Amino acid sequence: VATVDAVAEGVHFDGRFAPEDVGWKALAVNLSDLAAMGARPLWALCALAVPRGADPARLSRVGRGLAACARRFGVALAGGNVSRGPALSLTVTALGAVSPGRALRRRGARPGDLLLLSGALGGAAWGRRRGAPPEALRRQRRPEPRLALGRALAGLASACIDVSDGLLQDLGHLCRASGVGAEVWLEDLPLAAGLGEAARSQADLEALALAGGEDYELLAAVPPGRLSRALALERRLRLPLQVAGRITSGRGAVARGLRGERLRPRGAGWDHLAS
Amino acid sequence: VATVDAVAEGVHFDGRFAPEDVGWKALAVNLSDLAAMGARPLWALCALAVPRGADPARLSRVGRGLAACARRFGVALAGGNVSRGPALSLTVTALGAVSPGRALRRRGARPGDLLLLSGALGGAAWGRRRGAPPEALRRQRRPEPRLALGRALAGLASACIDVSDGLLQDLGHLCRASGVGAEVWLEDLPLAAGLGEAARSQADLEALALAGGEDYELLAAVPPGRLSRALALERRLRLPLQVAGRITSGRGAVARGLRGERLRPRGAGWDHLAS
Repeated sequence: VATVDAVAEGVHFDGRFAPEDVGWKALAVNLSDLAAMGARPLWALCALAVPRGADPARLSRVGRGLAACARRFGVALAGGNVSRGPALSLTVTALGAVSPGRALRRRGARPGDLLLLSGALGGAAWGRRRGAPPEALRRQRRPEPRLALGRALAGLASACIDVSDGLLQDLGHLCRASGVGAEVWLEDLPLAAGLGEAARSQADLEALALAGGEDYELLAAVPPGRLSRALALERRLRLPLQVAGRITSGRGAVARGLRGERLRPRGAGWDHLAS
Repeated sequence: VATVDAVAEGVHFDGRFAPEDVGWKALAVNLSDLAAMGARPLWALCALAVPRGADPARLSRVGRGLAACARRFGVALAGGNVSRGPALSLTVTALGAVSPGRALRRRGARPGDLLLLSGALGGAAWGRRRGAPPEALRRQRRPEPRLALGRALAGLASACIDVSDGLLQDLGHLCRASGVGAEVWLEDLPLAAGLGEAARSQADLEALALAGGEDYELLAAVPPGRLSRALALERRLRLPLQVAGRITSGRGAVARGLRGERLRPRGAGWDHLAS
């Protein structure tokens, strides 16, 4: 399996990022895509676009962040390209291996499957705000691809996606690909610690949790008969897992509040062409 | 084998390119890398960066050029990414297959090997000039990856590279990787038809031929015992092939004129960070 993703200055990172964070994030967001496919990462290529007058020391620090992420997750940086560009950007291609027939896809979810979500939501979106605490900043700048979880879910989950654009939007992708609907319940969503107190209002909390994006958690559909095996991964991998909703025979992804009311968070999730 | 390369507006293409040319070139330059490795192209990923206010009709024409190149060379466009960027750019990753042990590399050339060059040089550099004829414009905007030649040379050539940055510079890469030297003779180089008359001076001709770049021809080192088999490909593939020099036990790539004098063309070849 292969995936490509780009991070560009002024769009995906800004001057508040340490250069090492830029390199880390450029690779990590690709590894998250491999995780969502249940793949073992093999190697990566990096196409670097460098603006005129770029500081070589800064570029070298970007490279160190890339290398740190590669070491951490056992990926070989096998090559790449350098070219002039109007702004600093890194376009990383990551290659991974998965046993034949075991690749996780967005399609395959069936009504009745339960939705399993790793980690916590909203931290990365919180990290984009001024005054965010260190843990939220780290979540946005140094995402942790859930590679071990993805590989363990291959063979258990019926479909999987990583939450990069916001929960509702990514769940919508999974629903469309699978030809199903889905419901999640706000009360069942794992939120970043402290997010409840930090949110400006209930509507803000819903927006952060349902449409925040960049958390790079995995969202998997799991048939009920395999749920206990999937939940057992929480202990083995030391990663919180939570049942956050279920697949329905409807169409589209729906979020519901305490009284079953449909929630429509502000912001439809990450818009790739908005910034 | 895998390769990644980027084309960006204002660096690798400008407003004189038809949008279809941009898409074609973005993929073709990657296929040329696969050709130089002797690989059969399988599929490609395209990461598109789109500036604010980009014309959708123009993007669609870029996509048509990409698709035309993919069809022409039997590549599947398997996926990609779209993100906001400060200028239009396409970063294409191409994946190819080659039998184990048969991949052509830059290393492997040995003293005594002959240098075989496909097609003609200087046409693309000529195409960057005002008033260039249609054939030169086409060479610069719609490069033709030498895929069939590359696959045929796997098993015959000891090393190979594509001439993307200029003959002397790319030959220098091959020499460094192989730990050898090389000599080419200007009189033996195949030049684009009409280039001799179009060049402003002898020095200009040398610069176009030796340092012009973007011709995307293949330059292969071939052991003398396999030369006749390699040259027979000219007829089979209907592609001109010429012996343009030889590998030496020296260091670095040297070009020589009629009287054996060393030529030092203006411009060291394509500088990836110059534009």
